Amino acid sequence: MIAELDLTKKDSVQIDQIIIWVGRIRGCKVNSNFSLSGTLRPSARKLCEQKRSCIYSEEGSTKPSEPLLALSVSGDFLVCCGDRPAALWPLLLERRDLRMGEAIVSDLLTEILIPVAAVIGIAFALFQWVLVAKVKLTPERQTAPPANNKNGSGDYLIEEEEEGFNEPNVFVKCAEIQKAISEGATSFLFTEYQYVGIFMVAFAILIFLFLGSVEGFSTKEQPCTYVKDRTCKPALFNAIFSTLAFLLGAITSVVSGFLGMKIATFANARTTLEARKGVGKAFITAFRSGAVMGFLLAANGLFVLYISINLFKLYYGDDWEGLFEAITGYGLGGSSMALFGRVGGGIYTKAADVGADLVGKVERNIPEDDPRNPAVIADNVGDNVGDIAGMGSDLFGSYAESSCAALVVASISSFGTNHNLTGMFYPLLISSMGIIICLITTLFATDFFEIKAVKEIEPALKRQLIISTALMTVGIAIVSWLALPSSFTIFNFGVQKEVKNWELFFCVAIGLWAGLVIGFVTEYYTSNAYSPVQDVADSCRTGAATNVIFGLALGYKSVIIPIFAIAISIFVSFSLAAMYGIAVAALGMLSTIATGLAIDAYGPISDNAGGIAEMAGMSHRIRERTDALDAAGNTTAAIGKGFAIGSAALVSLALFGAFVSRAAISAVDVLTPKVFIGLIVGAMLPYWFSAMTMKSVGSAALKMVEEVRRQFNTIPGLMEGTAKPDYATCVKISTDASIKEMIPPGALVMLTPLIVGTFFGVETLAGVLAGSLVSGVQIAISASNTGGAWDNAKKYIEAGASEHARSLGPKGSDPHKAAVIGDTIGDPLKDTSGPSLNILIKLMAVESLVFAPFFATHGGLLFKLF
Amino acid sequence: MIAELDLTKKDSVQIDQIIIWVGRIRGCKVNSNFSLSGTLRPSARKLCEQKRSCIYSEEGSTKPSEPLLALSVSGDFLVCCGDRPAALWPLLLERRDLRMGEAIVSDLLTEILIPVAAVIGIAFALFQWVLVAKVKLTPERQTAPPANNKNGSGDYLIEEEEEGFNEPNVFVKCAEIQKAISEGATSFLFTEYQYVGIFMVAFAILIFLFLGSVEGFSTKEQPCTYVKDRTCKPALFNAIFSTLAFLLGAITSVVSGFLGMKIATFANARTTLEARKGVGKAFITAFRSGAVMGFLLAANGLFVLYISINLFKLYYGDDWEGLFEAITGYGLGGSSMALFGRVGGGIYTKAADVGADLVGKVERNIPEDDPRNPAVIADNVGDNVGDIAGMGSDLFGSYAESSCAALVVASISSFGTNHNLTGMFYPLLISSMGIIICLITTLFATDFFEIKAVKEIEPALKRQLIISTALMTVGIAIVSWLALPSSFTIFNFGVQKEVKNWELFFCVAIGLWAGLVIGFVTEYYTSNAYSPVQDVADSCRTGAATNVIFGLALGYKSVIIPIFAIAISIFVSFSLAAMYGIAVAALGMLSTIATGLAIDAYGPISDNAGGIAEMAGMSHRIRERTDALDAAGNTTAAIGKGFAIGSAALVSLALFGAFVSRAAISAVDVLTPKVFIGLIVGAMLPYWFSAMTMKSVGSAALKMVEEVRRQFNTIPGLMEGTAKPDYATCVKISTDASIKEMIPPGALVMLTPLIVGTFFGVETLAGVLAGSLVSGVQIAISASNTGGAWDNAKKYIEAGASEHARSLGPKGSDPHKAAVIGDTIGDPLKDTSGPSLNILIKLMAVESLVFAPFFATHGGLLFKLF
Repeated sequence: MIAELDLTKKDSVQIDQIIIWVGRIRGCKVNSNFSLSGTLRPSARKLCEQKRSCIYSEEGSTKPSEPLLALSVSGDFLVCCGDRPAALWPLLLERRDLRMGEAIVSDLLTEILIPVAAVIGIAFALFQWVLVAKVKLTPERQTAPPANNKNGSGDYLIEEEEEGFNEPNVFVKCAEIQKAISEGATSFLFTEYQYVGIFMVAFAILIFLFLGSVEGFSTKEQPCTYVKDRTCKPALFNAIFSTLAFLLGAITSVVSGFLGMKIATFANARTTLEARKGVGKAFITAFRSGAVMGFLLAANGLFVLYISINLFKLYYGDDWEGLFEAITGYGLGGSSMALFGRVGGGIYTKAADVGADLVGKVERNIPEDDPRNPAVIADNVGDNVGDIAGMGSDLFGSYAESSCAALVVASISSFGTNHNLTGMFYPLLISSMGIIICLITTLFATDFFEIKAVKEIEPALKRQLIISTALMTVGIAIVSWLALPSSFTIFNFGVQKEVKNWELFFCVAIGLWAGLVIGFVTEYYTSNAYSPVQDVADSCRTGAATNVIFGLALGYKSVIIPIFAIAISIFVSFSLAAMYGIAVAALGMLSTIATGLAIDAYGPISDNAGGIAEMAGMSHRIRERTDALDAAGNTTAAIGKGFAIGSAALVSLALFGAFVSRAAISAVDVLTPKVFIGLIVGAMLPYWFSAMTMKSVGSAALKMVEEVRRQFNTIPGLMEGTAKPDYATCVKISTDASIKEMIPPGALVMLTPLIVGTFFGVETLAGVLAGSLVSGVQIAISASNTGGAWDNAKKYIEAGASEHARSLGPKGSDPHKAAVIGDTIGDPLKDTSGPSLNILIKLMAVESLVFAPFFATHGGLLFKLF
Repeated sequence: MIAELDLTKKDSVQIDQIIIWVGRIRGCKVNSNFSLSGTLRPSARKLCEQKRSCIYSEEGSTKPSEPLLALSVSGDFLVCCGDRPAALWPLLLERRDLRMGEAIVSDLLTEILIPVAAVIGIAFALFQWVLVAKVKLTPERQTAPPANNKNGSGDYLIEEEEEGFNEPNVFVKCAEIQKAISEGATSFLFTEYQYVGIFMVAFAILIFLFLGSVEGFSTKEQPCTYVKDRTCKPALFNAIFSTLAFLLGAITSVVSGFLGMKIATFANARTTLEARKGVGKAFITAFRSGAVMGFLLAANGLFVLYISINLFKLYYGDDWEGLFEAITGYGLGGSSMALFGRVGGGIYTKAADVGADLVGKVERNIPEDDPRNPAVIADNVGDNVGDIAGMGSDLFGSYAESSCAALVVASISSFGTNHNLTGMFYPLLISSMGIIICLITTLFATDFFEIKAVKEIEPALKRQLIISTALMTVGIAIVSWLALPSSFTIFNFGVQKEVKNWELFFCVAIGLWAGLVIGFVTEYYTSNAYSPVQDVADSCRTGAATNVIFGLALGYKSVIIPIFAIAISIFVSFSLAAMYGIAVAALGMLSTIATGLAIDAYGPISDNAGGIAEMAGMSHRIRERTDALDAAGNTTAAIGKGFAIGSAALVSLALFGAFVSRAAISAVDVLTPKVFIGLIVGAMLPYWFSAMTMKSVGSAALKMVEEVRRQFNTIPGLMEGTAKPDYATCVKISTDASIKEMIPPGALVMLTPLIVGTFFGVETLAGVLAGSLVSGVQIAISASNTGGAWDNAKKYIEAGASEHARSLGPKGSDPHKAAVIGDTIGDPLKDTSGPSLNILIKLMAVESLVFAPFFATHGGLLFKLF
């Protein structure tokens, strides 16, 4: 009955006094934001209703702003339905087109711009790598320090130091230690990958089975969920492509983490060697290496996602709903690798750290980073696998998930139903712009300014955050202006909501700035330049107990402003553009991920550089420089953690929203028992999870203690430094223990959505997700900041930079001992249990999203039984 | 148009083919659980709809179970509306009456039973007091120990000890110390009452202004909210009576707390003296004193509530909706006093404890409870004001709130609209039954069984819990069977839900048993008889840091089962009887409050008794007996805290439900930005609050340290024991500091609902309440249990009762020092910040409930502006 007609042909069919007019809409933006209301003649209305998705505006209006339209978007076709002459339709349509506006960037340009940005990012990362590689690990030919004054080597505070400048022994030692660390990290990652491989295969099968069973493994095409008169691909193929996307996400995460670890272990000894030439050179080496990690991860993530979408499209064609549902698997893949990276890495790093300290410092009374300690390499490896690979996989997960959440929500908005590719790819364009902005920002640190003194390091790093955020705000404005039509509609739990392009700009921008606010609040509460940490340090006067009480109170207090920042960004972006707003706000916070990760990775590289300097027996002054680099890194690491938690909160809310949309829940009412028990149990899960991860660190550390003791007792000459310890066994113990200890918390995260969804259904699951989100984010922030504050309170006393600090010190004084206790307690809090909660809240949400079709169809067994 | 006719007269009016039949319903139970559906003729339907609340069942049915009814309850009148002959209605009605059944207990009997139970409770408390008072604080005439073997004095393990049995010096010393403690506690309470008085007046004015302004201080009668065609009392009078109820609740709480404190300080020295005669006698004295507190509080609370309702009724008459709305003020009054009691008392007790220890134990190296320490009396006073008055006011608050929540929900259910007094008073009847059951239970401890040995104390106390729970289950069944009609309806967010009496029995019983489960899980995690605390003690081997890590992990883990217990009771009671079910579940948990409080108050009395023994210089063996009493008290104190938190969770959910009903919100949808930001900010509040209370303890303790130091430095002969310290100044410092430090957290709790409700409206406030509930309950449980575990881990090492414990000890060993650090950290967690969270979640909920009419009318200013 409905002819398929080209817009230019303008054809129509008349049935029972009603004119059905159909035109091809490709290339024509249509706003379908009309609800079924008005005064159409009953018979006309009935006919239009039979067309189901036929939506029309009020009849009788003649104003151009309320054109006489009854239209429905169906596939590529526009069906207009009403009792006005057919000849009027195209005219009215065109007028509407004009009003709605069209994206300035064409679809073709979008398809070009995204991969170009990704390739630029990768190229920039490789270029930085080349620059880092120029620092040789073999003695240089020249015997004097370089005369040039570039890259901050003109150091007016710490002048050039020539003692042992080109001594071959130093090079050999550094190269040797670096090799050991690199091998240890590689060994951990490869062991991890064995488990990851098994997990990936098992979970891939699970995804396939759960999703395939939704329609009983049928290969028949189905009517789409949101646009009923369009056909979508069979559920079986969705299962296959979701599984594929999962594997792609997982592999991308693994590759990014591995490359990051490689460059970090490649750069640490080089940073140490550069530190001999001055703090500026060392800073640039460490920072460039961080940038390699940041850019590789951001660009790779974008590139693989872009390629996947385009490849999947070859099969899916016009079924964008199915396409982007399948793509959510990419987020799940990235996020489940983050579970291994963050939780496993977190347990590894703290087990090695605590284990090394308990025997080395306490029992054997040898200094930190002493090469005689068998666990010293494991400790340094831990920094790389925990803070580099772990943090990287966590942020990559967030990035992949927020992109997927934005895409899946967009696919059922007007972008998706109208096949507006540029609008659809808005999230990817934001990320592309982010890469370019971060590239410019990086130049400020490496080329536009010079680090000449120790005290300039921290401001330089903080400047990176401010510059990238300021520039990115402009970048977001440009993308929003160029890539979005002036007005479009967003799916908002059953109804379509009209959104303006400037409103979406605000959503992204508020996420971006909330990230900065969270970062700076975190800094305020964890840096010893401000009163909170100084108060905690001061409380060490009356012993460890008051230190712990004040530290816990500080952590609790530090939650307030970040939560308000998150709440405000949620409120604004939610109000402006529903769940799509939240998703792009998360993306906004992560848009400067390349810079964020560069700063973050800089920390452990500097930490390792310090360790290598100590182990290679380099002079006190060099150690002082690496310590200064490290101290700045500590603060930025805390900022990075704040950032990661904030973005995790937004991302998991966006995923939650996408899950709810996909599971076809229209409201999550706290006033229903199903939802409320989900909420309260969900709020409990972070505690359960934290209990597990904290005990895991304890148990793994004890295993390490046993091995270190064994080596000290059985290897003759170890304490005297005449025999070398067996570093590899410690690395292996840490590796095995962390992977084993990771299983229970990992199982809790992975199984909870499956069990709750299958047995209690989607409403309870929605409650669990909301509960774990609102509760988990608080514990994560407070645990991270408490730990960071204790760490820096100890450093504050050790550094003795002020009268007050000196009154508490020196090392070994009672207040210092109390501070050390606080620091040790803080280790698992800030590096294991706290940041791991990011994974808990995100992974449960993305898993629920991927399995939503299954839960919606077959879930809630327990309630169905009773 | 509608004639007011008596049921016996059976009259009717016909309008437009529809028969409107009206009968007086007094004395006739009607189930109005019909929704507006069916196949009534359109014209009939329209007419019925015009009557608004006209509800009818399906037409055409002739089965008695689906009678042809169209009925609406309107005032005392039943309006039936349909197109069947009028003559049929009374017949059908009667048939329905039969099916619905009626309560077996008459209204008159109910009105008698409740006050009788209350009076019995009070009389029993006074009788116990008399028994305690029989122990004289002056030397007895007889010079030998009593020959009789009653009341457990026949002690086969610790035989009679005659040394100094009747030495007058001991009596004088005991009386003196007791006087000092009693005076200190009285001084604190009176200072507190000055502030409480100011607060009460200010808050009473606030309540009056806010509620009075709802209808612009109008004195006109209004149509009721739920039964539209009935008139309710003017808002101004509701404001006046709410204010009155608030004052009554506050005064009852104050009086109960004061009396409890009085008996506790009356009994402590008596317990010490009885300990000379044997552990059994001492136990009974301490336990009887606890029972005085428990019974006074439970019976007073019930009695005042009962009297208030009956007095208010003189004004309100048939307007039960207004009556029970006003009564909610009683809960608010009780709960706001709990703020002072719990938070102020919590800060007091820990400030004195930590302050006394920091100077006494650490600086001056004198033992605990040494009379030379100026803060020692303040420390003992702290036990009374924190653990007796504070805990008492907390539980009284919970009791008052859950009763009010149940009553206000019932007032808009069929009990309220049909003026079914017995059904309406079901919550009071449960409490009455509770008093009787607890009375019987108490006899098991004091008369039916004898304590003959130290190891029998803890089982005896635990037996109390089990006996009271088991008996109460039968009690609940009896009350439910006698006082409830076999079927009735409950208001469930806009719709009426039919509930059977056995369903309500399950609601109450599941609350009761959930309390027991929470109690025993708490015991498992905090008693050093089980592995969790032993593991924590073991972790002290590697120092304070691992102790803290393991302790925190234990606290987190201990949350799991209680949350599941709470979730299951919520799910069951919510599903069976909506918010009324939750309210009665909370009441069920609190129904054995008299026994619970007796056990709880027993702890600090024994603690004080030990302190007095030490200060009076009594022998080691007597101290051993009081220590044994105290150790059992520690475990039951932890159980009591678990209980208080569990009931707080249920109570605040019930209040939340009542608030939502009263604010006319039909759904609290997490998927709206208003609610979600409320949820996440609400989940943050417990952290903010804990940060404040924890820092408060620290600051108050520091002030105490200064004063103690000053006294040691300025009073000559103090260290030598020749001069007496100035106990009163320390008591005053603790008092002033605790009241001052209480203001910020108190303001946070009191102002949050007012600010959120006024500026953001009821939806956001609902989110805040839900968020703070689900988040706060976790922190409260984990903080209490972590602190309890550390305390008992220390005691485990000190007691050295097993091979393992001895390997960690003795006192002064490194593991013991680590355990002491944990214990000190745990002090504010378990006695201040943790239990105070009960107040946070309950008080915000009850305050929201009381102010709901104001928020619903004038709230959400900020959103109205934009």
